[in-house]
Amino acid sequence: MLTMQDALARLTAYWTDQGALVVQPMNTEVGAGTLNPATFLRVLGPEPWKVVYVEPSVRPDDSRYGENPNRLQTHTQLQVILKPDPGNPQELYLGSLRAIGIDVAAHDVRFVEDNWASPALGAWGLGWEVWLDGLEITQFTYFQQAGGLNLDPVSVEITYGIERIIMALQDKTHFKEIEYATGVSYGEVFGQSEYEMSRYYLDDADIEANRRLLDLYAGEAQRMIDAGLPVPAHTFVLKCSQAFNVLDARGAVSTAERAAEFARMRRLAGDVAKLWVARRAELGLPLGTTPALDPARPAASTQTSDDARTLVFEIGTEELPPGELRSARAQLLRLVTEGLAGTRLAHGEIRVYGTPRRLIAVVPGVGAREDDHVRLVKGPKTTAAYGGDGAPTKALEGFARSQGVSVDAVTTVELGGVPHVVVEKHEAGGAAPAVLATVLAQVVTGLRAAKNMRWNDPKLSFSRPIRWLTALWGDDVVPVTVSTLAAGRTTRLLRTAAEPVIAIESAETFLETLGVNGIVADHEDRRELIVIGAQDLVYPDGKIDVKGESSLIDQVTDLVEQPLPLLGTFDEGYLDLPDAVLTTVMRKHQRYLPVRDADGALLPMFVTVANGPVDVELVRAGNEAVLRARYEDAAFFYRADLATSPADMRARLDRLTFTDKLGSMADRAARISSLAHALAADRGISSGVLERAAALVKFDLGSQLVTEMTSLAGVMARDYALRAGEDRAVAQAVYEAELPRNTGDELPRTVAGALLSVADRLDVIAGLAATVGLPTGSSDPFALRRAFLGLIAVHRATPALAGLDLVEALRMATAAQPVPVADDVVPACAEFLAKRLEQVLTEEGQPVDRVRAVLSAESRPARVDLLLAQLNTAVGDPGFRAVAAAIQRARRIVPAGTEASYPAAALKEPAELALHAAVGEVSAFTDISGFVGATRGLVAPLNTFFDEVFVMADDPELRAARLGLLATVRDLGDGLLDWSHLRLQ
Amino acid sequence: MLTMQDALARLTAYWTDQGALVVQPMNTEVGAGTLNPATFLRVLGPEPWKVVYVEPSVRPDDSRYGENPNRLQTHTQLQVILKPDPGNPQELYLGSLRAIGIDVAAHDVRFVEDNWASPALGAWGLGWEVWLDGLEITQFTYFQQAGGLNLDPVSVEITYGIERIIMALQDKTHFKEIEYATGVSYGEVFGQSEYEMSRYYLDDADIEANRRLLDLYAGEAQRMIDAGLPVPAHTFVLKCSQAFNVLDARGAVSTAERAAEFARMRRLAGDVAKLWVARRAELGLPLGTTPALDPARPAASTQTSDDARTLVFEIGTEELPPGELRSARAQLLRLVTEGLAGTRLAHGEIRVYGTPRRLIAVVPGVGAREDDHVRLVKGPKTTAAYGGDGAPTKALEGFARSQGVSVDAVTTVELGGVPHVVVEKHEAGGAAPAVLATVLAQVVTGLRAAKNMRWNDPKLSFSRPIRWLTALWGDDVVPVTVSTLAAGRTTRLLRTAAEPVIAIESAETFLETLGVNGIVADHEDRRELIVIGAQDLVYPDGKIDVKGESSLIDQVTDLVEQPLPLLGTFDEGYLDLPDAVLTTVMRKHQRYLPVRDADGALLPMFVTVANGPVDVELVRAGNEAVLRARYEDAAFFYRADLATSPADMRARLDRLTFTDKLGSMADRAARISSLAHALAADRGISSGVLERAAALVKFDLGSQLVTEMTSLAGVMARDYALRAGEDRAVAQAVYEAELPRNTGDELPRTVAGALLSVADRLDVIAGLAATVGLPTGSSDPFALRRAFLGLIAVHRATPALAGLDLVEALRMATAAQPVPVADDVVPACAEFLAKRLEQVLTEEGQPVDRVRAVLSAESRPARVDLLLAQLNTAVGDPGFRAVAAAIQRARRIVPAGTEASYPAAALKEPAELALHAAVGEVSAFTDISGFVGATRGLVAPLNTFFDEVFVMADDPELRAARLGLLATVRDLGDGLLDWSHLRLQ
Repeated sequence: MLTMQDALARLTAYWTDQGALVVQPMNTEVGAGTLNPATFLRVLGPEPWKVVYVEPSVRPDDSRYGENPNRLQTHTQLQVILKPDPGNPQELYLGSLRAIGIDVAAHDVRFVEDNWASPALGAWGLGWEVWLDGLEITQFTYFQQAGGLNLDPVSVEITYGIERIIMALQDKTHFKEIEYATGVSYGEVFGQSEYEMSRYYLDDADIEANRRLLDLYAGEAQRMIDAGLPVPAHTFVLKCSQAFNVLDARGAVSTAERAAEFARMRRLAGDVAKLWVARRAELGLPLGTTPALDPARPAASTQTSDDARTLVFEIGTEELPPGELRSARAQLLRLVTEGLAGTRLAHGEIRVYGTPRRLIAVVPGVGAREDDHVRLVKGPKTTAAYGGDGAPTKALEGFARSQGVSVDAVTTVELGGVPHVVVEKHEAGGAAPAVLATVLAQVVTGLRAAKNMRWNDPKLSFSRPIRWLTALWGDDVVPVTVSTLAAGRTTRLLRTAAEPVIAIESAETFLETLGVNGIVADHEDRRELIVIGAQDLVYPDGKIDVKGESSLIDQVTDLVEQPLPLLGTFDEGYLDLPDAVLTTVMRKHQRYLPVRDADGALLPMFVTVANGPVDVELVRAGNEAVLRARYEDAAFFYRADLATSPADMRARLDRLTFTDKLGSMADRAARISSLAHALAADRGISSGVLERAAALVKFDLGSQLVTEMTSLAGVMARDYALRAGEDRAVAQAVYEAELPRNTGDELPRTVAGALLSVADRLDVIAGLAATVGLPTGSSDPFALRRAFLGLIAVHRATPALAGLDLVEALRMATAAQPVPVADDVVPACAEFLAKRLEQVLTEEGQPVDRVRAVLSAESRPARVDLLLAQLNTAVGDPGFRAVAAAIQRARRIVPAGTEASYPAAALKEPAELALHAAVGEVSAFTDISGFVGATRGLVAPLNTFFDEVFVMADDPELRAARLGLLATVRDLGDGLLDWSHLRLQ
Repeated sequence: MLTMQDALARLTAYWTDQGALVVQPMNTEVGAGTLNPATFLRVLGPEPWKVVYVEPSVRPDDSRYGENPNRLQTHTQLQVILKPDPGNPQELYLGSLRAIGIDVAAHDVRFVEDNWASPALGAWGLGWEVWLDGLEITQFTYFQQAGGLNLDPVSVEITYGIERIIMALQDKTHFKEIEYATGVSYGEVFGQSEYEMSRYYLDDADIEANRRLLDLYAGEAQRMIDAGLPVPAHTFVLKCSQAFNVLDARGAVSTAERAAEFARMRRLAGDVAKLWVARRAELGLPLGTTPALDPARPAASTQTSDDARTLVFEIGTEELPPGELRSARAQLLRLVTEGLAGTRLAHGEIRVYGTPRRLIAVVPGVGAREDDHVRLVKGPKTTAAYGGDGAPTKALEGFARSQGVSVDAVTTVELGGVPHVVVEKHEAGGAAPAVLATVLAQVVTGLRAAKNMRWNDPKLSFSRPIRWLTALWGDDVVPVTVSTLAAGRTTRLLRTAAEPVIAIESAETFLETLGVNGIVADHEDRRELIVIGAQDLVYPDGKIDVKGESSLIDQVTDLVEQPLPLLGTFDEGYLDLPDAVLTTVMRKHQRYLPVRDADGALLPMFVTVANGPVDVELVRAGNEAVLRARYEDAAFFYRADLATSPADMRARLDRLTFTDKLGSMADRAARISSLAHALAADRGISSGVLERAAALVKFDLGSQLVTEMTSLAGVMARDYALRAGEDRAVAQAVYEAELPRNTGDELPRTVAGALLSVADRLDVIAGLAATVGLPTGSSDPFALRRAFLGLIAVHRATPALAGLDLVEALRMATAAQPVPVADDVVPACAEFLAKRLEQVLTEEGQPVDRVRAVLSAESRPARVDLLLAQLNTAVGDPGFRAVAAAIQRARRIVPAGTEASYPAAALKEPAELALHAAVGEVSAFTDISGFVGATRGLVAPLNTFFDEVFVMADDPELRAARLGLLATVRDLGDGLLDWSHLRLQ
């Protein structure tokens, strides 16, 4: 059996054989190998660097007293940095797995999107988690920035999670059972430390002492930056980070503190990075620089066919994320379409395909050449070209010279009705390969992802590295070159294929060749293979909810090139865990399809989709082990939680800081509770359910499972409440207090739930608006926008709250905050709320004019809905339109400040007297429907009035009376709508 | 070329092949691999442990900005722990050197005594530095205690200094040139860090921040101890240690602080150790326990000769320190002599020999058997043995029964003049092998060293492990067994011999066999080989100062078994360095013999003595490289110092704390200066030399060279002062201020030097006595005893100071301290001074009675010398003796309190009148010689008086007068001597 220490030695030896240096772990606690200066500093600047080292990585938060089988406060990373990107880092990485005895062809080794960012380090990169049969064993990242600096060259960072790899290789279910060295287990060597350091991090670390450490470290870091010494400065940044992590694990970091500390660390790390780069330059770059790769030289352009042939263009990439792949296929279609349109080549319908490793465009019937073509080059007007004597003028001579022809060679053509001299340029149509080469090069450079990265190519940028191009027109290579890439006729199959690179005969056989070799290029084909395969596997007892899991299936489809659905099972015992826990783990963590019986109950099985012809039993067993570990983890927390009463969990909220100014989570829960009660009282709602639910609200934040899987907040509250014997309605309300968790999520169905949900959101908005401010720009660290949207959604969905004025409610919430609140906070929130509501409604398709007309007078979303619905009906009513038009006209005519009163006696014209009478008849109304009915009698008099009466009479008295009458009309709908917004055309 | 990273990998692989675990370096800064819990904690308790790891060890004090070729603030240790001692750790270690390509037979690999102790960790062990051609490459220690706990089993700790080893293997002269990995130098990888961390440690670390860190760490350590968590507690102890080291490197630690911090760390480390042991026991000793080795079974006892034969007994050890070897030879002689005396074996003269690896006793003519022997067992008196009827009494019956004989078997013998019954026991003489086995076993267990250690033997203890016994009587093995060792007929040669273990034919051929194989057993033989060999090597230009270097030669002689003197040279350029620097390095650091020309000037060469038939060129080159590196080091500092003026160095004393209560070294130098001036003024001495020397005193403590080699304080002051253009006399005085550095050292020759020396010592005594107290017991951390002794020596040697009252001077020094001084400090110092002086004088052979007689009245050592000399003459003078006797007699007779006055008229006897007259004639005197002269006239009258006068006359008046007369005699020598001490017999 390969022991852990041997595995470390073999991996180290493998990478040193690849030319890597070996350095030692950092001699201050770090959370990851990335923080070691051998990564953080060395990825900066132009010097090459290739290193491998072990890094025992300390994550205080992951402390579990050594009891959790898969979670350690110190886990062992093996870290590799390749700078520059060698061009084939994935292949090198697979070699390293072989070095520790992993048969990468038999296992399902996958590169699953996982982008990495460390806000505290101002660092990010794009890359993957590497999965071994569903187990995350490695983080693989193309480093793009560190310390806020763009990295050039880009480094490849490969971080192996050693304990996980070894547990899989040794088939162990608890890290303590790992055979660390021959005859010595991991637990025997590290078990006590694991327990004791967990005790320190979770229970015993002195908070005050660690706060002071944090400040002292930050002070020294700053001093060293000021002294121009990046190396010691970096060390102190790391110490800051550890002290912060200790405080965090002790639950002593508030949201605001976290943001402040991250900002401080980011600033320090940025200064360190800048200093390092400057110092290295001063030192003359001791390790040299990295030469840029040379541009590729195109293949010789040959053309062996005169007939139209198929064009195939493949852009070979490293594993694209599913979302990016979807977008890239669309872009490819657009770019090829536009590109071909810019040529004069005949062609058939363009089709595009894509897998994680390739984007393919296939175009049948692409002509062998463009037609020849005559192009006119416009010269001077004929009158200016020839003198009175018909002799060429200087102007003509100059033109002819510039075109390289004699003055005799020009002809005359009427352009825009004026005769000009022109030169006719006869241009031969391009040969297909040459023309296509230009078009396709632009296709490659035109690709853009939502998040783009750089790799070893000096010019390209995309979601993931582009590693090869295959371009054929019929039998001929299209000599595309883009930066360092030159297209050829070879393509790549699965990396584990017997022959991973093969030559393609002709464009016409391309897709077939891929297919024969197992690659399913078409998304729909792969999806069907998966859906049918999965259904077959679980038939007859189980079924896959293909519709419900549609987005997951789409994602899985774009994670493979050669889908192989596999059925795995898990111990029935885990079915005791809540459905949401089981499926959250399956979907979010593992991308497994849950299997249900006819009644919708989960079955103890799952479908995973492997890539390529793996050893099915091996991969199944691996995936089952991963799921078992994850469920064991969850069960561990769940059991611990069930042993704790909701009241005890609630009590733990005291220890969770919400923000330093806004108190603990317990304080927040208390505010939510009292606000919910106040809102209920205002509406005359009195409910034992609300009473109890309010006492429990947010208690599950004190549970271990929710601490681990925050997305289960509320869900677990309901579960734990029910199991603790709470009333079903109470449990439901506590659950609903968390709804909606995101746009489109379920909404509270009970009044108590809705009240709690609204109170929750009002509290967070009020507190943060008062202390941190409302979000601006794209930065919204506390997700306040989501809180506003949730508030709106619940209000609209809850009839009992229809009368609730949210601005008033915000005022109440604001008053309950433990901080003084400035006068402008509530108005600012009201404005922010209105903007969100306008946005929501317009996104739902409501005309913006009507939305604005309604919103300016109303902040109760439910009533806004009502008014908007009435307005939408009303605008179809000619009477309403007439009245509305009249109101708008009156607003235009009547000078501002004119009062809506007049001496009726001053009126004389019948039309104005009629209007006067009709206005007096308008009955009271409370909404737009009412307004329509109440003003119906005005329609005719208004029309007549405007037709017959000249308002601006010379007689001032008369004029004043008429204006007063009109002002009365103007004010008719005041407080109901802002009529000025309404567009009636 | 073997790169550094490959060497680390190979050593790691070698030790894992020996079954060691690999762990990672500590993730907090440590000063040595020993501090890693994989050593510090794991050596505790009974669990076995075998581990290898790399430890980048941080020594802030060693920071040199990367400029010094051999000194790094972070150097790489490879640490190995073997627990229990495997019995052959040295051989395993040599195997590891072979693993990195070192031909241990060609090189001179040596185990040179180096005991290790870490006061801060409550840890110590005995062992060696391993030298490779004079270069210290490894620390090899048998751990005896850690955290104040005795270790059982004992662990072997092997610590490789990797940079040094690699520099030697790669033949590099600067660490930055090391080929760290193929094509990448050490400097390229670590150079910047070396510079910047040096900056932090030496210049930029914030002292206040690090003090606070130290306290916070200590607080957390204590909290974790209180929480029963040794692992995190240990981590914080390490952090304490690093913070302390940073403060120390910044020159911010006073002597007192150092002591206090060490005490705190020792206490914390002790608590951690106890906790760890307790916790491991609670956990059931997860790694099991170490079984004790079984006792050895003796060889079968055979005896093949009936004639007397030679006995040879060899105790094979690991390398004994020279001092212990000397002592062990003497013990061996005594133990064998006593042992044989307890037998009845005839034997010739016992001779003992010894080398670092063996103690040998050879005894010719040891008889084959003891003579047979009759032993009488004494019974009751005959009168009690038989009744009146001659029948045996119960007493006789009981005696006979107890002796297992019948009552008839007893005989009667007169014992002490009284007839007793006895039983004769006929005892056969033992055979030589059997008898000798018992004797020799006791020899082994009887050996004791000044510092004893344990190893894997459960019962033995000695200076270093005893690994084998060879015991032959003639051709026969003497079947000695001691604990796990059984003697045989094999012995061991050099570990690098072709056949390292050989069998010995017979005792008679033992020494010859050793000799033939190159081992020179006799110290004198080895010494002669070295002396003659060395002289030969340097002939004709150079010579070795055999007498002057005698103790060094003795030491070297006991460092080898097969001496091979080698001549090495060094660059003449280094001769520019002061002689003392060059020889200090040669003698103290390298144990090389300096070579001088006929005029005593150093030649650029040295003699080193290798052990065994090494590759001479290789070893020479190695030793030369080591010396070059050391001289380069020294030259580096020397150059830096020469670029600094004495005034600037003096200014640095501000930054050196003396003790926290007594201020900086600058403060101390100022006090010395002003005290020296005051003392000079009192004696009417006025000198420009003193003026200037006092201004410079101690300035060289601010030099880099003295910081490195403290033993050169004063020497460098003189050198730097001269080179800075100071007057020769000034330079000499500054040098002399430091004298004497130890007992028997040179003393100041100039008055200015003597004044400064005295002032220095007075200041340190006064200051420390006032703040810390005088030394008690064996503890004297501030070497105050040495200060007192120096004070005495200088006073005695300096005529100009003869009149200086040291107690008065101490009072002046005390008054100048920056702290309040209790009233009892000066008296306590005076008493301490008198005790030291008494000790010095008696050690010089002065009779203690005379010393005490003089000392009780005099605290000026020079005057004590004078008085003592006079007294020594005087006691030979019968007149003085008579007077002295009379004075003593008078003291006995005259009641206390009797005044020395009397009415002369009351006297009547001629004898008393004569005495009265003579007493009146006694002239004044100031010393003992004067006293002898002045009292000469008293001799006869005194004799007559005592012969003829009965003092205690009945007449009270007469009696009073006579007593008064005698009291006058009694008081004659008051203030000159304490006559009661003087013994005149």
